[in-house]
Amino acid sequence: MAEPGATSRLRLSGLCFLLQTFTILLFAAFVRFSPESGPGLCSQPLNCSRRIQDWGSQPPRFRDAHIQTLLGFGFLVAFLSRYGPGSAAISILVVAFAIQWALLLQGFLHQFRNGKIHLGAQSMVRADFGAAAALISTGAVLGRVNPVQTLLLTLLGVTLFTLNEYTLLTLLGVSDSGGSVTVHAFGAYFGLLVSRLLRQPHGEQREEQQDTGHQPDVFVVVGTISLWIFWPGFTSATTAHGSAEPWAVLNTYLSMAASTMATFVLSPVLYEQSTLRMVQIQDAAVAAVAVMGMAGEMLVTPFGALIAGFLAGLIPPLGFRFLTPFLRSRLKIQDTCGVHNVHGLPGVLGALLGTLLAALATADAYGGRLEPVFPLLARGSRTRTGQALLQLSALLLSLLLAALGGCLTGELYLGGPGRGPRGCARCCR
Amino acid sequence: MAEPGATSRLRLSGLCFLLQTFTILLFAAFVRFSPESGPGLCSQPLNCSRRIQDWGSQPPRFRDAHIQTLLGFGFLVAFLSRYGPGSAAISILVVAFAIQWALLLQGFLHQFRNGKIHLGAQSMVRADFGAAAALISTGAVLGRVNPVQTLLLTLLGVTLFTLNEYTLLTLLGVSDSGGSVTVHAFGAYFGLLVSRLLRQPHGEQREEQQDTGHQPDVFVVVGTISLWIFWPGFTSATTAHGSAEPWAVLNTYLSMAASTMATFVLSPVLYEQSTLRMVQIQDAAVAAVAVMGMAGEMLVTPFGALIAGFLAGLIPPLGFRFLTPFLRSRLKIQDTCGVHNVHGLPGVLGALLGTLLAALATADAYGGRLEPVFPLLARGSRTRTGQALLQLSALLLSLLLAALGGCLTGELYLGGPGRGPRGCARCCR
Amino acid sequence: MAEPGATSRLRLSGLCFLLQTFTILLFAAFVRFSPESGPGLCSQPLNCSRRIQDWGSQPPRFRDAHIQTLLGFGFLVAFLSRYGPGSAAISILVVAFAIQWALLLQGFLHQFRNGKIHLGAQSMVRADFGAAAALISTGAVLGRVNPVQTLLLTLLGVTLFTLNEYTLLTLLGVSDSGGSVTVHAFGAYFGLLVSRLLRQPHGEQREEQQDTGHQPDVFVVVGTISLWIFWPGFTSATTAHGSAEPWAVLNTYLSMAASTMATFVLSPVLYEQSTLRMVQIQDAAVAAVAVMGMAGEMLVTPFGALIAGFLAGLIPPLGFRFLTPFLRSRLKIQDTCGVHNVHGLPGVLGALLGTLLAALATADAYGGRLEPVFPLLARGSRTRTGQALLQLSALLLSLLLAALGGCLTGELYLGGPGRGPRGCARCCR
Repeated sequence: MAEPGATSRLRLSGLCFLLQTFTILLFAAFVRFSPESGPGLCSQPLNCSRRIQDWGSQPPRFRDAHIQTLLGFGFLVAFLSRYGPGSAAISILVVAFAIQWALLLQGFLHQFRNGKIHLGAQSMVRADFGAAAALISTGAVLGRVNPVQTLLLTLLGVTLFTLNEYTLLTLLGVSDSGGSVTVHAFGAYFGLLVSRLLRQPHGEQREEQQDTGHQPDVFVVVGTISLWIFWPGFTSATTAHGSAEPWAVLNTYLSMAASTMATFVLSPVLYEQSTLRMVQIQDAAVAAVAVMGMAGEMLVTPFGALIAGFLAGLIPPLGFRFLTPFLRSRLKIQDTCGVHNVHGLPGVLGALLGTLLAALATADAYGGRLEPVFPLLARGSRTRTGQALLQLSALLLSLLLAALGGCLTGELYLGGPGRGPRGCARCCR
Repeated sequence: MAEPGATSRLRLSGLCFLLQTFTILLFAAFVRFSPESGPGLCSQPLNCSRRIQDWGSQPPRFRDAHIQTLLGFGFLVAFLSRYGPGSAAISILVVAFAIQWALLLQGFLHQFRNGKIHLGAQSMVRADFGAAAALISTGAVLGRVNPVQTLLLTLLGVTLFTLNEYTLLTLLGVSDSGGSVTVHAFGAYFGLLVSRLLRQPHGEQREEQQDTGHQPDVFVVVGTISLWIFWPGFTSATTAHGSAEPWAVLNTYLSMAASTMATFVLSPVLYEQSTLRMVQIQDAAVAAVAVMGMAGEMLVTPFGALIAGFLAGLIPPLGFRFLTPFLRSRLKIQDTCGVHNVHGLPGVLGALLGTLLAALATADAYGGRLEPVFPLLARGSRTRTGQALLQLSALLLSLLLAALGGCLTGELYLGGPGRGPRGCARCCR
Repeated sequence: MAEPGATSRLRLSGLCFLLQTFTILLFAAFVRFSPESGPGLCSQPLNCSRRIQDWGSQPPRFRDAHIQTLLGFGFLVAFLSRYGPGSAAISILVVAFAIQWALLLQGFLHQFRNGKIHLGAQSMVRADFGAAAALISTGAVLGRVNPVQTLLLTLLGVTLFTLNEYTLLTLLGVSDSGGSVTVHAFGAYFGLLVSRLLRQPHGEQREEQQDTGHQPDVFVVVGTISLWIFWPGFTSATTAHGSAEPWAVLNTYLSMAASTMATFVLSPVLYEQSTLRMVQIQDAAVAAVAVMGMAGEMLVTPFGALIAGFLAGLIPPLGFRFLTPFLRSRLKIQDTCGVHNVHGLPGVLGALLGTLLAALATADAYGGRLEPVFPLLARGSRTRTGQALLQLSALLLSLLLAALGGCLTGELYLGGPGRGPRGCARCCR
């Protein structure tokens, strides 16, 4: 990132202090632990028969809190390994603030009762999702913004993410348990739009830096393994109770296996190098998870996951080869970490797959699992076509919000010190 | 590995495409999710009273799917760290394909009902075991075969592993929950026999490469810690329900502690260097787990695990010092990653220990735990001596199958392009 | 560490052999698996209604053994990453021996019935705590003692830790589930006192070595992530059953987020460098956990965790800037890994916070959670003031025992071969 002087360092220090103080005050005023529904209760059989209050239309899995956060943070490992140790400090700052901010905003929308937010274990999982979206956005502009700007980006990104997620999941009843649309696609396109507006004259210097961005193999290996270990659990962390849960895990697992094979199919054809670079395998794993975010709990047949994973695994090699240069030269969008190929397009593919599956969802195929996956469909208050259209409109709404929000955020950046006053007009050309 | 040209790259690409397409077709034709016995059900107390259908004679633990896969993949972490980042891409390819292939084959043998394979969470764990055996085999020939050959080795290795496992665990009722025989010994000797037949004139170049094979410490440290964290759970992943399970975990844990001490006892005597290399400690941990694979759930007394672990910890230092040079010079067997010292011999020791324990198993010593560990013994349909003989014959059968299979596979390799047509005769001399 | 010759290597080998043989004999004589209360039972709903026997006044969480050890070992990951790969071998040796030794000693104190120690899953967790305290102590003297001395330090440290823990938790009924006092403060001050007595003329050479002690970023990143993933579960591993457990997890999580922000507030002011070093963020995470060790299960309001974490996050930057040079120049205490700033002071702060919370604990604020957190208070056999005074006296007792024990241990060291016979007088000046 840009070398900040003494002023810049103090500005970062001050902003962190301000944000943390503000957050503490809000927590003091509003946030309390959920009084009766501790997650620990559910591991004691005698208490588990009383149903925990639903949270929006998606009853979150009420399991041990530390397992949840453990799984959730696998996300972070993957991102860090992609962005490299040099950016790790900033990534952790993003997570530390995004989690607190997401807890507050999501609490106001979801768990605000009697003037207090009632915090529980599932709040942490949702907050992890928010932090993940913020990290994806950061990935598009990494190395071109200073820490202060990154914090502001996180502030706005998490706010928009929470609004979008609340609209889609709670108000519209869209099924997107693993965040194909709300996390991957939203985070990627939000970051890309910000990146579009950040485009600076000294952008040419970026190209080498982007190449050195390929970390030492050790780090990428650790990241890839973490993905394989933790992410199947992450995509299923907020799926419906009971029977739909293992579907999401197994589907994600199969999807990762197939997408790895796809990378080995395509990369030798596209690239001259004799051996595959680990970072390509990591890209395949991330894409496989992004495509399974929405469809993971919907896929009834394992071979569907294999096919979807195989297709998702084709996207990153093709994208890095053909799309990223095109974006850079024509659309003037620099994508430092390639979030478009790894999160954006696979997320869109996942949403289309989810739409298709919702259109095909019949009680025959799902049996007792229709209720947890598509509750409104099961209760008869919505048709299959209606649900499918909603899943599709969720994608369009997210892209629209990401585009508008990205323009707005980029605008705020460009109005900052040391940058010319270029406007949203450029973004919307 | 050998530097592949354009032809070789395209051959890898084509083989991956072929295998993946074939797998998808088989999955489409045969594999469905298990309809009623989702693993998620078991975390809901009300549904848990109905017993899940046994799977062979070993009722697998029916727990959360993601915990299972999480633990299972700890295996992979350890292997990758041993083989080094340079081989990580190939290892992941092996895992990605081995899991799909093992799911299919094991499904046909274990879960084939009404023309369909019913996939569940426990299938993933068994598939992880298969992938682990394939990785161990790969470890013996790593750096001397190209990716295409590695894939074929995986294809054959997983097939033989599945046959062997089915014969031993299901047909013969052998207890080997952690895979001392089926995973460690079988994988190691299968790989060693293939390595024997691969012996090439340019084998001398290997010796330096083997030395550079000692990875940077960071990587080995991460691998060792992963072993300590994940493997105790892995060895107990398929143990019997209930009370026998913590035995396997605690025994493995104690075994690792004692074998680490053993390495600190022996290494200063054998080697001149002043400080221990981390890779030696990792070897000790792997050997400790291999020896506990079969006996882990059988050992009634903790000090037994300490003694077994201590003995297992003596094997790798002695083996690398005296046995590996002997194998290389006399038997012409190159063992790139030393799988013989780390997996092979400790696995054999574990099988002998298991035999001894089965011979000593009385209802007095085991109490209610006899039933889950030795079900046939508890039901009176088998004597202690019979069970012990079976445990021993399991070792011999596995070694025989590994030897024959290794010869067959090596033969197939040697008949490949660019290699002289040497035959099985050499193997069986 | 000092370059040991052949004699030194053989002495290490002999000591390891001696200790391991001694441990095996003790295990053979005394240790058996707990006959009826296997942890696996609790995952089977039907058996869970029978209450497991309490262990001291703190009923440990009786969950799956491998989850426990998995979480416990997250501790180790963090320490290793702090001390660097060069010291990893010694750290693993410390853990391997400390676990066995702690199992024996804690078994004699806690689980000794009918002449036998009954080992269960929770024993492993407590042993992990002991190993953690030993690792912290080792951190203060790392690089200045040879492996033999490290083993002896572990032997004495674990013995004193077990005595201290038994006195505080079982005899006095102090609540310290995450070990603010028993693990962090005790381990740090014990190590510091030993370090004081080790002060040698060639101590000047240490300063450079201390600087090279900053590991490559990759390693620190992995350690920090492991902390975030595993430690919230670790602090809650021995908390009371049920509802108090998620509090500890969530509080620790929030504390880590706030302390990371605090580091970003303070570091830019104190240091000239433009970007934060990852090791500073890791320090913040460790401090945040140390401060939550005692208070984690007591804090009713999330903002309390944020404030405590923020304060704890200020300690390491200030400590490394002002306190460590002062300790080194005035008190002649070298602190290789800065355990005073990262474990010692935050642990003391955590104990003070715990005292305050105990003084404020009312049945109104805690509701049904008073019983698991402060059992004696809930039963009316102790007043709030009494409990608060006990929590405070726990801190003082631990510091006293750490100081005396450190002097004793340092004395034993200094009397060793090759060192002048300086005495305890110097320690107590």
